[in-house]
Amino acid sequence: MSDHVYKKIEIVGSSTESTDAAIKNAIAKAKETIRNMRWFEVVETRGHLENGEVAHFQVTLKIGFTLD
Amino acid sequence: MSDHVYKKIEIVGSSTESTDAAIKNAIAKAKETIRNMRWFEVVETRGHLENGEVAHFQVTLKIGFTLD
Amino acid sequence: MSDHVYKKIEIVGSSTESTDAAIKNAIAKAKETIRNMRWFEVVETRGHLENGEVAHFQVTLKIGFTLD
Amino acid sequence: MSDHVYKKIEIVGSSTESTDAAIKNAIAKAKETIRNMRWFEVVETRGHLENGEVAHFQVTLKIGFTLD
Amino acid sequence: MSDHVYKKIEIVGSSTESTDAAIKNAIAKAKETIRNMRWFEVVETRGHLENGEVAHFQVTLKIGFTLD
Amino acid sequence: MSDHVYKKIEIVGSSTESTDAAIKNAIAKAKETIRNMRWFEVVETRGHLENGEVAHFQVTLKIGFTLD
Amino acid sequence: MSDHVYKKIEIVGSSTESTDAAIKNAIAKAKETIRNMRWFEVVETRGHLENGEVAHFQVTLKIGFTLD
Amino acid sequence: MSDHVYKKIEIVGSSTESTDAAIKNAIAKAKETIRNMRWFEVVETRGHLENGEVAHFQVTLKIGFTLD
Amino acid sequence: MSDHVYKKIEIVGSSTESTDAAIKNAIAKAKETIRNMRWFEVVETRGHLENGEVAHFQVTLKIGFTLD
Amino acid sequence: MSDHVYKKIEIVGSSTESTDAAIKNAIAKAKETIRNMRWFEVVETRGHLENGEVAHFQVTLKIGFTLD
Amino acid sequence: MSDHVYKKIEIVGSSTESTDAAIKNAIAKAKETIRNMRWFEVVETRGHLENGEVAHFQVTLKIGFTLD
Amino acid sequence: MSDHVYKKIEIVGSSTESTDAAIKNAIAKAKETIRNMRWFEVVETRGHLENGEVAHFQVTLKIGFTLD
Repeated sequence: MSDHVYKKIEIVGSSTESTDAAIKNAIAKAKETIRNMRWFEVVETRGHLENGEVAHFQVTLKIGFTLD
Repeated sequence: MSDHVYKKIEIVGSSTESTDAAIKNAIAKAKETIRNMRWFEVVETRGHLENGEVAHFQVTLKIGFTLD
Repeated sequence: MSDHVYKKIEIVGSSTESTDAAIKNAIAKAKETIRNMRWFEVVETRGHLENGEVAHFQVTLKIGFTLD
Repeated sequence: MSDHVYKKIEIVGSSTESTDAAIKNAIAKAKETIRNMRWFEVVETRGHLENGEVAHFQVTLKIGFTLD
Repeated sequence: MSDHVYKKIEIVGSSTESTDAAIKNAIAKAKETIRNMRWFEVVETRGHLENGEVAHFQVTLKIGFTLD
Repeated sequence: MSDHVYKKIEIVGSSTESTDAAIKNAIAKAKETIRNMRWFEVVETRGHLENGEVAHFQVTLKIGFTLD
Repeated sequence: MSDHVYKKIEIVGSSTESTDAAIKNAIAKAKETIRNMRWFEVVETRGHLENGEVAHFQVTLKIGFTLD
Repeated sequence: MSDHVYKKIEIVGSSTESTDAAIKNAIAKAKETIRNMRWFEVVETRGHLENGEVAHFQVTLKIGFTLD
Repeated sequence: MSDHVYKKIEIVGSSTESTDAAIKNAIAKAKETIRNMRWFEVVETRGHLENGEVAHFQVTLKIGFTLD
Repeated sequence: MSDHVYKKIEIVGSSTESTDAAIKNAIAKAKETIRNMRWFEVVETRGHLENGEVAHFQVTLKIGFTLD
Repeated sequence: MSDHVYKKIEIVGSSTESTDAAIKNAIAKAKETIRNMRWFEVVETRGHLENGEVAHFQVTLKIGFTLD
Repeated sequence: MSDHVYKKIEIVGSSTESTDAAIKNAIAKAKETIRNMRWFEVVETRGHLENGEVAHFQVTLKIGFTLD
């Protein structure tokens, strides 16, 4: 087995629904341009508030993918 | 546009249901006394265990709001 | 009331469903061999990606329990 | 049992005697205006030096209390 | 000399001009309601970008003041 | 001299008296089942508050011991 | 309003003049190839010294921009 | 595929030769009692000095293994 | 001398041989597409274990390069 | 009032008695060669264990003093 | 080219004017006794407040210099 | 046995060969002027890149030694 090399990028997903959906939205967007995604790491969870309620959950991820 | 100043406070929300509900409970409580809340940041996620199960999810947030 | 002593162990739970389910899976597994679990702390949230989607959420917890 | 919400504030206690006394002085002062204090967390320990000796121990605490 | 107790609050100042001005704006706003401010600590420096330029510098401070 | 290997475990000691006593209580408990303890590292200091006073100091330690 | 996704990149700006100018230089360079930049976060401030004086201030930023 | 649960333990390996050998010594010792080890993470690298030279490299690892 | 601007990317190199080889493998791969690489910073060292032995060392680097 | 410059050094004090005594021992030793010490910051608290008991508390301090 | 060795010291500069001036003041003071200074890293930015205004900006630096 | 006091200094070693050699070079240089060195702690690992290859590994260490 060869010695793989990976790149990690940092993406922020947002969702009006949940923190998990914010993670999935970030990955769905990254999938449009990146192949061979292998793992993610949550770096930060935060969100916008409007009228005293959560308007968006925002989750910052690092996404690792194999460099061909 | 004027130079806004914000204050950040630290609140711990709890929920028997989920981490997201703990976040929302913290914000709902803060809303009772704070106007103009703008964002939150998750600082820590933990919880109480009873009888080998999650009794409460507890999420510590910082909440930022505009100082009038 | 006596001076309690606690031990903390580090467990990684995984779930195809959600981060909260990964937490619960970790605790359910720990419950098989540990009594008197009192609290948990989330240390890290990450996951595996396959075909551009979340295959597993993985949450690392510290679990504290009373030493008898 | 209801879902409690807590607030955390940051207080610095000082003492000419010991780090533990600095902790207690911080809590005694907070007690004058805050009810239902539940826990504290030590954030930082430092102190002032005068004439080559400890003049004051200074301990920064976060204090958590129940929001009614 | 008595054993002082201090409280620390977290304030975010913003400025279209500079990071130092953001610090000063935060302190000027805090001065309106807090007496006996003694020191500040920079926690985070960030800013908003508009049209590819810095619209606001934003500096998060902790401000320590003496509790009477 | 051989190449030693050590294991580190995480223990929380508590005491109604002092932070140092909480450290000693944690070590005394660990001593019941662990031989060849070599060092400890303080990870966190916190405590419970009741009636506006310190009910228990709680100190989290890592304890290192030689694996035979 | 849709669920935005952002990417964050890490840029180091330098300036012989000031830390604020180093920030602006980093953003001006990023502007050449990135549209829709929304915010920056200062990660690190350092600099080169020559002949006992500051030759360059160097500020590392994360820059967040909207993914179309 | 089922939802795996992992445990992480903290081990310190030492070696008179190199940091990599200290890692391998830690894992060889852990292998004596733990099955299904899956990954390690380096937590800290340090060492003892004697007569102005490195006597032992010491590397602290977390080792993750599958709970059956 | 002009005010240089640098970009930093995050790469994970792996090696069956050593941590240093993992660093070199990451840089060799990055060299295929990036010019003017100037420095690297080790962010994390970990690895995969198979049959109780190190299968791959994995080192996460940040690599800084000059933006033309 | 002039613009003071301070230097900070890192000292580890030890004591068979208490963490506070370890702090005081570090400062007493530093006093032998350093004038104008102004403050200290606790960086780390650890200790040696012998026969299952604390042999030495060890506290790492940074000590700040005025440069004349 | 030989393998250089550097030492890093920690200095706190202060200024009534700006954070950049505090950096420069620290370096100017260090220059009086240290040759071959090569770089600095900002560790902490804080300041004293008097009468509700910034009396001194205080910036803690690490300064690296070549050991001859 | 008396209560020892230690001082820690921060040294950066470099090597064209390996990270371990960079550690040894730092310690060899420190040995020229410091007696009674007892331990080291790796603080940071980085390096310079030239022509797409590692020109120097650079390892920052803290070195602890006994104050006589």
